[in-house]
Amino acid sequence: MKTHNFSAGPCILPQEVFKEVSESLINFDNLGLSVIEISHRSKSFVAVMDEAVALVREQLQIPDTYEVLFLQGGASMQFAMLAFNFLSENGKAQYLDTGAWSSKAYKEAAGLGNAEVLASSKEANYNFIPKDYEIEDDADYFHCTSNNTIYGTQIKKFPQTEAPLICDMSSDIFSRPLDVSKFDLIYAGAQKNLGPAGATLVIVKKDALGRSGRYIPTMLDYNTHISKGSMFNTPPVFSVYVSMLTLRWLKANGGVEAAQKRNEEKAALLYNEIDRNPFFTGTAAVEDRSTMNACFLLNDEAAHKEAFDAIIAEKKIYGVNGHRSVGGYRASMYNAMDLDSVVALLDCMKELENKF
Amino acid sequence: MKTHNFSAGPCILPQEVFKEVSESLINFDNLGLSVIEISHRSKSFVAVMDEAVALVREQLQIPDTYEVLFLQGGASMQFAMLAFNFLSENGKAQYLDTGAWSSKAYKEAAGLGNAEVLASSKEANYNFIPKDYEIEDDADYFHCTSNNTIYGTQIKKFPQTEAPLICDMSSDIFSRPLDVSKFDLIYAGAQKNLGPAGATLVIVKKDALGRSGRYIPTMLDYNTHISKGSMFNTPPVFSVYVSMLTLRWLKANGGVEAAQKRNEEKAALLYNEIDRNPFFTGTAAVEDRSTMNACFLLNDEAAHKEAFDAIIAEKKIYGVNGHRSVGGYRASMYNAMDLDSVVALLDCMKELENKF
Repeated sequence: MKTHNFSAGPCILPQEVFKEVSESLINFDNLGLSVIEISHRSKSFVAVMDEAVALVREQLQIPDTYEVLFLQGGASMQFAMLAFNFLSENGKAQYLDTGAWSSKAYKEAAGLGNAEVLASSKEANYNFIPKDYEIEDDADYFHCTSNNTIYGTQIKKFPQTEAPLICDMSSDIFSRPLDVSKFDLIYAGAQKNLGPAGATLVIVKKDALGRSGRYIPTMLDYNTHISKGSMFNTPPVFSVYVSMLTLRWLKANGGVEAAQKRNEEKAALLYNEIDRNPFFTGTAAVEDRSTMNACFLLNDEAAHKEAFDAIIAEKKIYGVNGHRSVGGYRASMYNAMDLDSVVALLDCMKELENKF
Repeated sequence: MKTHNFSAGPCILPQEVFKEVSESLINFDNLGLSVIEISHRSKSFVAVMDEAVALVREQLQIPDTYEVLFLQGGASMQFAMLAFNFLSENGKAQYLDTGAWSSKAYKEAAGLGNAEVLASSKEANYNFIPKDYEIEDDADYFHCTSNNTIYGTQIKKFPQTEAPLICDMSSDIFSRPLDVSKFDLIYAGAQKNLGPAGATLVIVKKDALGRSGRYIPTMLDYNTHISKGSMFNTPPVFSVYVSMLTLRWLKANGGVEAAQKRNEEKAALLYNEIDRNPFFTGTAAVEDRSTMNACFLLNDEAAHKEAFDAIIAEKKIYGVNGHRSVGGYRASMYNAMDLDSVVALLDCMKELENKF
């Protein structure tokens, strides 16, 4: 019986990828060696890195004026790194606060220089995306988070601005088409739609760099990694390899357009049930609902939580506990999740309704 | 026919570990899920992290006054991180320059504050470890690199000092017993004796922290990671998991004492052949020769390189090319390498001798 993996991240990846990785752990590229014991300077791994970068470029149609990097440290390291690279001593950064991760990103910039929160939905426990704010044209940059895993909200339309636009897309990159040319910097921890934890994707406009005027530690300088093709030091070999395989899978399955279609179908199915079923209520504002993470509460937790948890355990639904700051349930439906897993969850919700 | 993996890093790990990891890629902990698709907050992964930390503590007999962390970014990120945490605005850091990595470590401290090189073997292409220097008692710290992968040198006896002692042990940690209590900070990229690239081990004395008085970006502050048990953000799940399995293997095979014995046996075998065989010369000073990486040159490269390269290719010797800054050959013999691989390399060296 299949386990349905609704984990928020690290999360489900394609089954085909697991199989290929499993074999490569014993014999990679017919070398008689494991993929994790070869040099990152070997022909075999250089080919992996090159293909991973090429697939990112192809799938997101990235202009040549941008660099694609695979780094370490997750989005959390990017919070500091982007501030070192984009926030000048006398400049100002502007942030949209749509959740815990936005807020942490802001904190790093504020620690280093002048940063301000333009708009926030914190008082509503981040259950919507603020839209009424104005970005100053001469800001060093404007920062936003495209998808808020914890609260199940997602930016559907990015703001227009003259200021450099920077976005943390950790939890929805590759889930939909993207006009990269609108952004100066896009970054994403790999562990949702891209690959396993341990790699961080960075897409950066080359001519936006080198302007902060600050001393930047070598490893926090994007130009360090650009000059060495993400191999300034040993890259996270395994995570880059699995990301490359996941990108191949994405391409073979129709790319981001097809992924978007499947993701919208899955999300519509689940949100329709949340709205229909009298036992549940969604937490996010309808117009900002994320296609990646759907958050919902039992209307009567005291009466039904035990029963519902038993039903989902029975159906092998894994990883649907809500984040402690929202409570209830959270179903993460990343690219690699099949429709049948969402159907299995719907069956559980209907079973609860029928039972009482 | 077995491939003999002499790669400098990423490098050989135990075969038993590859097998177990390969299975866990499909079904981990009987969850019906891959080890790379489960939440880092799940019971299963928390148990992995706990066991990895406990095994590091046990194998190196680490006092309770130290913390053990698994971070990202490699030793290169530590170069900056340690400076932020240990180098005060008015203080001074002192460095021993024993190679390219020492030198990069120094550069990060010098970029941030006052740092100086106490002694260097650069003019001799780093073929020995300087021993004639005096560390100032009131330095913020003294930094050294225990093993120099590129040049095949290794510190056999660490200096006595009143100043905090910091050491990059990336390429020889777990290869020999270690008195952790002499150090304030030890760090190591995982990708030699510990696990795959993507994790960085940090062992830090708790009460040595919090003294630099600097603004430290959140992710570069050791206390951030201590307060969250290496889970401030998503850890490199896979690399920590494989490290834990490698530590189990180390323990089952007699721990660091037994590893040291095997490593010395392998190294003695190879260095004896280098010294005996008239076709080869070792590059490192005899008293500083590394048990991990043996560097040697052909005495007549023009006449014998082609033949020797053909012989080693025939025997499936992999990864013995020397680093470009030294040339010749480098045989890396980390913990997981069996004696028979060293014997295979010796056979090649003898075959060359017999051929000409």
